[in-house]
Amino acid sequence: MDQQKLIQLITETVKETIEQSSGSFQRLHKTDIPIAVSNRHVHLSSEDLEWLFGRNYELTKLKELSQPGQFAAKETVTIIGPKGKLPNVRILGPSRGKTQVEISLTDGFIIGTQPPVKLSGDINGTPGVIIQGPRGQLKIKEGLICAARHIHMHPTDADAFGVTNGDIVKIGVDGKRSIIFDKTLIRVSPKYRLEMHIDFDEANAANLKSGTIGKLIRTELS
Amino acid sequence: MDQQKLIQLITETVKETIEQSSGSFQRLHKTDIPIAVSNRHVHLSSEDLEWLFGRNYELTKLKELSQPGQFAAKETVTIIGPKGKLPNVRILGPSRGKTQVEISLTDGFIIGTQPPVKLSGDINGTPGVIIQGPRGQLKIKEGLICAARHIHMHPTDADAFGVTNGDIVKIGVDGKRSIIFDKTLIRVSPKYRLEMHIDFDEANAANLKSGTIGKLIRTELS
Repeated sequence: MDQQKLIQLITETVKETIEQSSGSFQRLHKTDIPIAVSNRHVHLSSEDLEWLFGRNYELTKLKELSQPGQFAAKETVTIIGPKGKLPNVRILGPSRGKTQVEISLTDGFIIGTQPPVKLSGDINGTPGVIIQGPRGQLKIKEGLICAARHIHMHPTDADAFGVTNGDIVKIGVDGKRSIIFDKTLIRVSPKYRLEMHIDFDEANAANLKSGTIGKLIRTELS
Repeated sequence: MDQQKLIQLITETVKETIEQSSGSFQRLHKTDIPIAVSNRHVHLSSEDLEWLFGRNYELTKLKELSQPGQFAAKETVTIIGPKGKLPNVRILGPSRGKTQVEISLTDGFIIGTQPPVKLSGDINGTPGVIIQGPRGQLKIKEGLICAARHIHMHPTDADAFGVTNGDIVKIGVDGKRSIIFDKTLIRVSPKYRLEMHIDFDEANAANLKSGTIGKLIRTELS
């Protein structure tokens, strides 16, 4: 083989190898993730549930949520801020250690308090808000957040997607208002079922409804 | 040079060339674009302006908008749908050939009519809505849209960014709620000033405010 032909052959082989490697993640792993849109909601500690609804009160299950054991309760509360209120905010059960109110940034403009974008449970130093129930009103000192987008996965899903707990990925959603949600956290637990959670602002920005399929993207943008 | 060394040299040269080419757009062209968040607003034809505000009525300029010649008027209207209303919706001037009402998908849930995502001006077959002014009420048969995201550019900007009118690009926004807005239309005109326009749903999904800088991205995701 003369030198010229050799150069051409090698060049093409290398080019092909590099081009293929960027798409190899998509070929080797699952990419489709169902997306669920979370409306504003409240998690209550058992103490706060009693304060708002009465002694020894227990939540009534309205419907099961996709994450095993979690449910939407029949009961709702009103969230009150310095500029306005949000009525009929659903309580999610079961009770948690600490009360947490999850609203969108749009909701924040309505009540006059902007919630910081935080992962569920990370409420240290977040703003407080007033919660109104049928038996009382409660002013929590912290716990108002806008939930950061995240993906729940069972360990078997994590294997299939080629990711691990704590990974940050991009999720692409196609359509007229195509969006790529960047910095999306993967949370892996045997208690979880495969689902990405976003709020209504994110859903409307992408013009999507619960059940839409997002694509996990691993190739990096420069 | 022996054949083994030659292969190694060529391989490295090709690899370097391919790796650099994907970043070459960003190195050669401008990428930074200021983003403006559009609130719900109305453009009125002169006939509809007269119907709502009275004969020979002229809008009062409240403030100039970033696009030359455009202004926010002191006057507002109420937008009414089957399920609710949006009060104090700003009129933008000057008058246009056809009346057009631009609201977000969040607003659509409030009034009970979902606006299709359309480019400004593309109102054929879009839903109607009721507009209430101080002198009358008007039921437009079409004209309710959710404005598709787009970028205004002067021809000199288009040169600097390496794009032309009608190009579809991605715009990345960094931060806690990093997003890449896909399918963003470039509109080039000597009358335009450099600015990307999004609505409040998109702004909240990315946790950004007017004035935030987006980055034009040309590298393709697989």
